[in-house]
Amino acid sequence: MRKHRELRPFAAFRPGNLEVHTGAMSMLIVGTVATDDIATPFASVAGVLGGSAVYAATAGSLYTPVQIVGVIGADFPTAYMEFLKERQFDLEGLEVQAGKTFHWAGKYHYDMITRDTLATELNVLATFNPTLPSSYRNTPFVFLANVDPKIQLSALDQVAEPSLTVLDTMNYWIETQRDDLTAVIRRSDLVMINDEELRQYTEEHSLLRAARAVLALGPRALIVKKGEHGAALVTSDGYYYAPGYPLEDVVDPTGAGDSFAGGFLGYIATQAQVTERELHRALIHGSVVASFTVEDFSVDRLKDVTREDIQRRYREFASFTHFERLD
Amino acid sequence: MRKHRELRPFAAFRPGNLEVHTGAMSMLIVGTVATDDIATPFASVAGVLGGSAVYAATAGSLYTPVQIVGVIGADFPTAYMEFLKERQFDLEGLEVQAGKTFHWAGKYHYDMITRDTLATELNVLATFNPTLPSSYRNTPFVFLANVDPKIQLSALDQVAEPSLTVLDTMNYWIETQRDDLTAVIRRSDLVMINDEELRQYTEEHSLLRAARAVLALGPRALIVKKGEHGAALVTSDGYYYAPGYPLEDVVDPTGAGDSFAGGFLGYIATQAQVTERELHRALIHGSVVASFTVEDFSVDRLKDVTREDIQRRYREFASFTHFERLD
Repeated sequence: MRKHRELRPFAAFRPGNLEVHTGAMSMLIVGTVATDDIATPFASVAGVLGGSAVYAATAGSLYTPVQIVGVIGADFPTAYMEFLKERQFDLEGLEVQAGKTFHWAGKYHYDMITRDTLATELNVLATFNPTLPSSYRNTPFVFLANVDPKIQLSALDQVAEPSLTVLDTMNYWIETQRDDLTAVIRRSDLVMINDEELRQYTEEHSLLRAARAVLALGPRALIVKKGEHGAALVTSDGYYYAPGYPLEDVVDPTGAGDSFAGGFLGYIATQAQVTERELHRALIHGSVVASFTVEDFSVDRLKDVTREDIQRRYREFASFTHFERLD
Repeated sequence: MRKHRELRPFAAFRPGNLEVHTGAMSMLIVGTVATDDIATPFASVAGVLGGSAVYAATAGSLYTPVQIVGVIGADFPTAYMEFLKERQFDLEGLEVQAGKTFHWAGKYHYDMITRDTLATELNVLATFNPTLPSSYRNTPFVFLANVDPKIQLSALDQVAEPSLTVLDTMNYWIETQRDDLTAVIRRSDLVMINDEELRQYTEEHSLLRAARAVLALGPRALIVKKGEHGAALVTSDGYYYAPGYPLEDVVDPTGAGDSFAGGFLGYIATQAQVTERELHRALIHGSVVASFTVEDFSVDRLKDVTREDIQRRYREFASFTHFERLD
């Protein structure tokens, strides 16, 4: 019989570079700005605003100022640009290039979890190599949202000692650019990845073993995203779980992971320090924001979300999981 | 935009017949006693002790005395009968019939969740119609473990006003005996079902809507089992979530749901009353016991589990999900 290694909570987790600070700090987001065609078994939309940076920034800006690094084509709709400006994103790092904006098309199965990618047209993203504005280079919180790991690395090279670097990725990069992805994992403090992609990347079935294989590359923490089931935070000796918020209706799961990350890091950026307690709370904030995202297509639901809406669902989470110990 | 109905914790849940009582009460378990052939991508075994009643009783007996209603054939191995006796199960309701014991064979996919059923040989179970011993007929806690819903109904008819009736089922009965299953759901206080089967039975995608469709049939609570992700307890206005215990190695998932139920109801049976607090704790106990079950084939791991082992993992669960609210 195997001896099971007992897990402890997060006492040991202290991001190394993270000094005590006060007030909301900016977060820098590197990722895609896209137009999406999305079909679910219940409805479909075409040409809506999407992309990992857009979802993450819209979520993150509920908490803290955001700086965007990305690229759009000359065809990017004015209405979408107006939204990014209204939201007060710092767009100095958003390049406009001749050509077409990155376009993604996907179709969800009846389970609203699995999906087929129908089109991935990189367009201006194919040759994008970011140059960060000087005002971005000392930003303490960096989110490398889902995009080509070469772009993530190039951006990260231009930031001076971030306090916390968070990485997200997807199966496409695991399959096509595994070495670059590994390089950027090695330089990240916290990696976010969904359960199937974690198994795919590590070729380990057990999520706990798989998580440890990624931690062995350097990151101090890993968040395993499990779709509607929630997300787990794993460190070398700690484990924490936030369930998914139970929704009656999911309209479109696209961007759930990106906005989870935006809410997570946005919350962290408002905190005076990052200890176990803040990480747990940040995980709940990520789940709360993602629960709003999936209630409508694109970032439409997030447009109307208030701080009070967030607080209400946040309080519900406490009742969902709190139980009194016997002793 | 849809208005989301906010969920509250369990203030409203009070099992109707459940009077205050003290000390451990017996639980009655109706289900299968089987020999199983199980293959995983990593190992396989043949002819091991299995069946829903066996898993549930082995788990439940960690908490409280258990009475078994079931049937075995003349071929049932003496060694397995010795185990049932050693475990001090009340076996007066376990009939021995001429013929062969129920036999199940299954093969797990690499994900260790999905599986193919290779054989379901009902044998003596095909014609089984239980007669409950008189000593079973006033047992307050009844677990209708996974078996033909006709057998579940017949047994339930012979129990005088149980305090709490818990029902488990599986896709096989949804597909072949839907009407009988619905009849027994109508008479249960609490239904346990896995997420895919809940969707299959209700033809509703949203788990919350699907849960409400089952609650509309009569049960006051539903437990949605999500395999490695955990389990959710849903009432008409309440929601509670217990994550799965993070394991490095899963040897065999067979019986996880049955032993979850045994731990859940076994714990309930030891409590002086059943309120929100006890239901939450019971959900954690179910998860803890199931986490041991899957660490070995058959009920082998449960043979060695001590009360201290349970307490240790139970305490870990508190650290996995507890977070401090902001206000």
